[in-house]
Amino acid sequence: MTGNMLIAQSGGPSMVINQSLVGAILAAKGSDKIVEIYGALHGIQGIFDEAFINLRAEPDEVLLRVAQTPSSALGSVRRKPTADDCRAIFEILARRNIRYFFYIGGNDSAETANIIAEEAERQGYEMCCFHIPKTIDNDLLGNDHTPGYGSAGRFVACAVRGDDLDNRALGGVKIDVIMGRNAGFLTAAAGLARQDPDDGPHLVYVPERTFTVDGFVNDVAQCMERYGRCVVAVSEGIRGADGRAIAESFSTETDAHGNVQLTSGALGENLAAVIRERLKIKRVRADTFGFIQRCFVGITSESDATEARRVGEEAVKAAVSGEYRSGTIAILRQPGEDYEISYAVKPLATVAKHTRELPDEYINAEGNNVTEAFLAYARPIVGALPETARFNQLRA
Amino acid sequence: MTGNMLIAQSGGPSMVINQSLVGAILAAKGSDKIVEIYGALHGIQGIFDEAFINLRAEPDEVLLRVAQTPSSALGSVRRKPTADDCRAIFEILARRNIRYFFYIGGNDSAETANIIAEEAERQGYEMCCFHIPKTIDNDLLGNDHTPGYGSAGRFVACAVRGDDLDNRALGGVKIDVIMGRNAGFLTAAAGLARQDPDDGPHLVYVPERTFTVDGFVNDVAQCMERYGRCVVAVSEGIRGADGRAIAESFSTETDAHGNVQLTSGALGENLAAVIRERLKIKRVRADTFGFIQRCFVGITSESDATEARRVGEEAVKAAVSGEYRSGTIAILRQPGEDYEISYAVKPLATVAKHTRELPDEYINAEGNNVTEAFLAYARPIVGALPETARFNQLRA
Repeated sequence: MTGNMLIAQSGGPSMVINQSLVGAILAAKGSDKIVEIYGALHGIQGIFDEAFINLRAEPDEVLLRVAQTPSSALGSVRRKPTADDCRAIFEILARRNIRYFFYIGGNDSAETANIIAEEAERQGYEMCCFHIPKTIDNDLLGNDHTPGYGSAGRFVACAVRGDDLDNRALGGVKIDVIMGRNAGFLTAAAGLARQDPDDGPHLVYVPERTFTVDGFVNDVAQCMERYGRCVVAVSEGIRGADGRAIAESFSTETDAHGNVQLTSGALGENLAAVIRERLKIKRVRADTFGFIQRCFVGITSESDATEARRVGEEAVKAAVSGEYRSGTIAILRQPGEDYEISYAVKPLATVAKHTRELPDEYINAEGNNVTEAFLAYARPIVGALPETARFNQLRA
Repeated sequence: MTGNMLIAQSGGPSMVINQSLVGAILAAKGSDKIVEIYGALHGIQGIFDEAFINLRAEPDEVLLRVAQTPSSALGSVRRKPTADDCRAIFEILARRNIRYFFYIGGNDSAETANIIAEEAERQGYEMCCFHIPKTIDNDLLGNDHTPGYGSAGRFVACAVRGDDLDNRALGGVKIDVIMGRNAGFLTAAAGLARQDPDDGPHLVYVPERTFTVDGFVNDVAQCMERYGRCVVAVSEGIRGADGRAIAESFSTETDAHGNVQLTSGALGENLAAVIRERLKIKRVRADTFGFIQRCFVGITSESDATEARRVGEEAVKAAVSGEYRSGTIAILRQPGEDYEISYAVKPLATVAKHTRELPDEYINAEGNNVTEAFLAYARPIVGALPETARFNQLRA
C-alpha cells in the first residue's frame, strides 16, 4: 500500500519524544511506500484544524538536532477524542490520502489510534494506525519500560542525589515531591540516588501503597533517630485509606481533564508543616520538582534516547511491512544480568485504556521504600549517575 | 611562619564549593609552611565543638572525586557568630596552633574571618585569615562574579530552556520562581535560555525593580497577545513599592536567621492564581525551583568548576607567601570580547557586610527583562547550553 503519512505527538512532553518522531520520519524517508510525510501540530487538534507541516522538507541535520531537543517539537495537546471526534479525524485522513498514521503518546493515544483504526476498517478504507509509546510515568502495559521514563528518572535521581548532599551539609528533613498520579515508577527512581547505606532518600512513598500521616511521622522520627537527618521522596499521587489523593486536601486547581492539579507545591509544604509541628524539628524543607523534571535540557539518559529513536523507526518499519493494520511497539527486556532490549509489535489493545503500576516486588514490606529488585531494574534505564564522593573519614 | 591550617565551609552549599576546598587542600599539601591540615565540620559550629578531620589523611584520588561533588563536603552551618563567638573561636585556633585559617562562604563568612583576624592581631597571635568566595547569588562586592553562580545559573538556564519548549508544546502561562532574596543575578540567568526572538523567558522580574501586580498582569497580557503563550522567570525576592517581599504576604515560615522562607511554592501559586483570575487563561502553571538549583548533580559549569578550584589554591598561596595577614580572593575579568579571568588578593572589608545587586545596565527600561549586556556578561560564566532546535517551518 502506498500513500501519505501523518504523525502527531500527544500528552505531556518528555525529553526524548522527539527522538521517536525523528526515528519515524527518517524510517519513512527510507521507504518507497510513503509519499508525503505530514506532521500535525498539537496532536489531534492539528488534525481537526488541518494544521500540518511537511516533514520531508526538513533537512536531515535539522531533524537530528530536533531529535535531541526535549519536549514535543510538533506541539502537543491534552485532549482525549470522543468516538465522534475519531470519525471526524478519519474523514480528514481519508480525504488527504493518509495511509499511515502514527500517534506518539501514552495509553490514551493508543486508544485514539485504535478507534481511528476501527473506523477505517468499518469504512473499508485501507490504513495502518500505529501507536508509538511515550510516558515519563512508565505506566504502559506490555512494556518493560517506556521511552521518556529513563530521562525523567535520571533527572529525579540526579536531583535527589544533590539534595541528599545538601541535606547532609545542613541537616533536618527534606521532602521532595515527584510526578506520578497513579504509578510510582518516577518517584521510585529517586532510590538510584543512593550509594552508601546512610545516603538518602531514606523514605520513598508511592501511590501504590496507602499513605497515612501517622505512619509518615513515625517513619521520619525513626530516620532522624538513625541518621540525624532525613530525605523523603514522595509521589504527588500518594493516597489515603479512602483512595483519595492526599494532595487533593491541599489543592483545588484542576487540569483540562478535571483532575486536581497535583503539581502545586501544597502537598510538600503541608507534609513539611506536619513534621515541624509534630516532631518539633526546626529545619524542614520541601521542594516540588514540577514540570522541569520532564523537559530539562542536558540530562537525557543515553539508553532512553536510543530506545526512543528506535521505537519510532520500528513503528514505521512494521507499518510499511504490510503485515499489520495497526499496532504499538513494545520494549521487551531479555532475562539475565545484562541489559538487552528487543522490540515487538503488539496489538493496540495491549496498552490502550489500562495502566501499569509499580509491581509489589519493587516496594519494601513497610511500604516506605523501594527494593534492590527495583534498583536493578531501573539502573540501566536511567544510566550511571555522575560520580560523587565523600571524605573517607566521613563515610558511615 | 609555620603552623597548622584549618578550613571550613559556610552558608548554602553550591555545586563547586568542594572545588575550592580541594584547591586549598592540594595547595596546602604543596607548602612547607603548613603542618597539619584540619577541616572543621559544619563551619564555625565544628570549631566550637572541635569537630575536626585530618584532611592530609585523605588520598588525592578521594580529594579529586570530592572536588567534583556538589554541596559542602565538610558540612555547613547557617550561623553568623557574634564578637564573643569570634573570641571563643580564636582561643581554640590559638590552642591548636592554627596559623592559617580559611573560611569558604559569602559576605558573612568574610566578616567572620575579619573579626577573627582582628582578635588575633589584638592578642599579638600571628595568624593568617583568608576568605574564599562562594555564593550562587553572585552578590559579593569587588568580584566580577563568584564561584557557585555559574553552575546554579546553568541549572536555571537549562531548566527554563526546557520549560520554554514545554510551554511551546502545551501553551498557556508558565511561571518559574528562582532563588535570590536581594540580588537578581540567578533569575537573570534564565535569559540565557533564549535562542530565537520568540523564545522564553518572555518576562524576567528581579528584586532590584519594584514589582506591581497590575504591571505583571499587563506584561503577561501583552506577551499572550504577541506570542500566544508566556514564560515568566521571577526571583523569590521580588518586592512591592513598600520594599517588602511579595512572597511574605503568602508565607510565614522563617529560616534560622528569622527571615521569611521564600522558597515555599506560595509565591508562584499565587501569581498563577492572579493570572488565571484576571486574564481568564485556563492553563497557568508555576514551578518553584527550590533547593535543587544549587546542588544538582551533573550540570556544573566548566569555567565555574575551574575558577572555584583556583580561588582555593590562590588563597593558600597568598597566605603562605607571608605578604598578608588576611584577605579574600577576588575574581576579576579583563575588558574585551574574550573571556579572560585574573585573581587578586583583596582586603576582607571589600566583601564583608555589604552585597552587590544587579547593575542597572543589566535590566531593561521596563524592568521586566534582562539586557543583551547581561547576557554577554553571563554567557561565559554559565557556559554554552546543550544544543536544542525547532523545525525550520516552525521558527518565527
